[in-house]
Amino acid sequence: MTSSTLPSGTAVQAESPEQVFDWIDVRAQARGRAGLTRQVRPRPAGSDALDLASNDYLGLTRDKRVAGAAAAASLRWGAGSTGSRLVTGSTELHTELELELASFCGAQAALVFSSGYMANLAAVAALTGPGTAIVADQLIHASLIDGTRLSKADVAVVAHCDPEAVRHALATRKKQRALVVTDSVFSVDGDLAPLAAYAEACGKHGAALVVDDAHGLGVVGEGGRGAVHEAGLAGAPNVVTTITLSKSLGAQGGAILGPRRVIKHLVDTARSFIFDTGLAPGSAAAALTALRVIKEEPSLPERARNNALELANRLRAAGLTASEPTAAVVSVRAPSPDAAVAWSSDCRKEGVLVGCFRPPSTPDQISRLRLTARADLTESDLDRAVEVITRTAPR
Amino acid sequence: MTSSTLPSGTAVQAESPEQVFDWIDVRAQARGRAGLTRQVRPRPAGSDALDLASNDYLGLTRDKRVAGAAAAASLRWGAGSTGSRLVTGSTELHTELELELASFCGAQAALVFSSGYMANLAAVAALTGPGTAIVADQLIHASLIDGTRLSKADVAVVAHCDPEAVRHALATRKKQRALVVTDSVFSVDGDLAPLAAYAEACGKHGAALVVDDAHGLGVVGEGGRGAVHEAGLAGAPNVVTTITLSKSLGAQGGAILGPRRVIKHLVDTARSFIFDTGLAPGSAAAALTALRVIKEEPSLPERARNNALELANRLRAAGLTASEPTAAVVSVRAPSPDAAVAWSSDCRKEGVLVGCFRPPSTPDQISRLRLTARADLTESDLDRAVEVITRTAPR
Ligand SMILES: Cc1ncc(COP(=O)(O)O)c(C=O)c1O
Ligand SMILES: Cc1ncc(COP(=O)(O)O)c(C=O)c1O
Repeated sequence: MTSSTLPSGTAVQAESPEQVFDWIDVRAQARGRAGLTRQVRPRPAGSDALDLASNDYLGLTRDKRVAGAAAAASLRWGAGSTGSRLVTGSTELHTELELELASFCGAQAALVFSSGYMANLAAVAALTGPGTAIVADQLIHASLIDGTRLSKADVAVVAHCDPEAVRHALATRKKQRALVVTDSVFSVDGDLAPLAAYAEACGKHGAALVVDDAHGLGVVGEGGRGAVHEAGLAGAPNVVTTITLSKSLGAQGGAILGPRRVIKHLVDTARSFIFDTGLAPGSAAAALTALRVIKEEPSLPERARNNALELANRLRAAGLTASEPTAAVVSVRAPSPDAAVAWSSDCRKEGVLVGCFRPPSTPDQISRLRLTARADLTESDLDRAVEVITRTAPR
Repeated sequence: MTSSTLPSGTAVQAESPEQVFDWIDVRAQARGRAGLTRQVRPRPAGSDALDLASNDYLGLTRDKRVAGAAAAASLRWGAGSTGSRLVTGSTELHTELELELASFCGAQAALVFSSGYMANLAAVAALTGPGTAIVADQLIHASLIDGTRLSKADVAVVAHCDPEAVRHALATRKKQRALVVTDSVFSVDGDLAPLAAYAEACGKHGAALVVDDAHGLGVVGEGGRGAVHEAGLAGAPNVVTTITLSKSLGAQGGAILGPRRVIKHLVDTARSFIFDTGLAPGSAAAALTALRVIKEEPSLPERARNNALELANRLRAAGLTASEPTAAVVSVRAPSPDAAVAWSSDCRKEGVLVGCFRPPSTPDQISRLRLTARADLTESDLDRAVEVITRTAPR
């Protein structure tokens, strides 16, 4: 019994329908006092703002070829896929995308989901069970954490990017099967997980490795093949990679890449695959076209990385504490949550969109701006970004 | 400790990387023996098959207005929304869709998600906590079940469509707060939950009610306003409705409708909203246009319902055991799982696509064909469907 259980003998106080959600107002007031209220700010179609907040790392979401492919596929296949991938929701477009994703990233097979979030739920929940020990980096993405919550496995959360902690957790586990779960490029700070060391620990201790390469695909590795490919783990028999189609590929959706038997297992058992409508044809076509653009223009990923390096260097030269980017994400420290909010809001007023992260979204209690450096940023975009961010910086 | 825990003193047997997923083959063999292997069958863009398997109830997914809106929005806004709805992923299109969905269904406010699955995770997990008792109909959709698994609430699963069981569970709960969770139209059999009786029980016992109207919206109620509206519960202060944009609205995505304070709470706390890329603009535009088509052609929902009634009547007249449809779904009993699989496969060979459900997807152990009657079925489509389904029926 948790403390929230009514003491025995105590009756429930039946509230009127109008009162049933009163607890929500109490919570909202507490969040208001703590400065944790979030806001949906709808943007217009055209805007002069300089976008350093989106995950459109290669600038492909508005690329004529990519958006055109989404448009053409919507007209040809319809606006929706009409059903579960196992009933009417699989089109030849989905299969084509799966084959090209697998081949590009060096995996045996791939399976497309309606989002990266849903792919992550499947990768963790469908590959584990009561006989599994999950070892998770403490800063993995919310969707992977939800996957561990849906699993019936033991879960050990270990220190961030610490292969020794992973090794220890694997060696002391109480279950025969084990799954190590990590992001490749962490979404907030943009730092890179020690994938090779994790893989070595997994190899030694008979564990599988799930890597979320959401922020690596299209940016890191040879021609943008991702962090798993870069670490030499792409075809490994015990490695499963998840990706999203919503960042470098400029679309919507997600996918799991891995050994053929793993993909077949997911088709048969993953709830977020079986009981969900298939990805819209327009999104599948957009992601497929973006992938082909990356193959045709293998310098795009490098441009995104170089812009991130230059942005970070120039911000550091101006006296700010910027991260050492490994992909397209640059994080800049703010002295406090309030200062971070004010800073990002000042940037927005000056026409520069930046992300703002603060506790509880940053478990290390450090607030920061999150900047993303797209491949299509120009020299003058960078000048403008650095000028505005440094000028509005809290002292 | 579960029985899957290694006996103390027993060491883990570290498998080689090649062996780590061997357990998957063992499971696959067991599923193969039990006839439970599933198959992805990609469909071509054009096909002469008569579709009685999709959830495109109003035939809108290929409607020129709807598909055209998806195409135009992809070109105007880009193929993807580029970020979380809280960062760059909210466009004016999302807001427009939210306002029109809420107004059509009679709710105060709405929030759009990237899928109905993600909306359901949020509705259950973000509206409950350790101080909540969840009372769930035993046949709710997998996504709602996953929502209960992500929550930290007490969960009581009660008999299907049984208001007395709901009342009892509410009266004997050990937590102050309570949430009753149900589908409106159940996805497999197409039967309707006793929503008014559930609402009465909730009113009496101070509980909130979450209704998944995925198969009701666009088909049931005045002009397709859904089963919650039909039951007179649309604006109720303790009722929250979830819908998908992927069935009657022919697109992709989902939404939650309810009191304004609930929607605000979800913006601040729902993980599957905050940590997910916003719905693709093309899908949002398609759903918005489909909604406008339904408003302009309020007879569409009735046509879908009437076609379902006629299909069921004619199959029953031919000696089959068909359900009494309340929406667009008709289920037809099969004598065994194998017979259901063979039957649906024979229908497919004859150019009629039907769904096939069997244990464990049907918890009552009865296997059946699942037919969906779309608004745009013609007399001759119905003739062809009845002829093929009865001719191929197992004896
Ligand atoms: C690391 C990571 N994984 C997964 C996701 C979820 O992917 P999607 O937005 O496509 O659902 C995100 C963010 O959106 C992410 O940052
Ligand atoms: C009752 C019900 N709720 C929710 C969902 C999930 O919606 P979506 O496919 O849009 O994710 C489905 C099926 O797809 C469903 O049948």
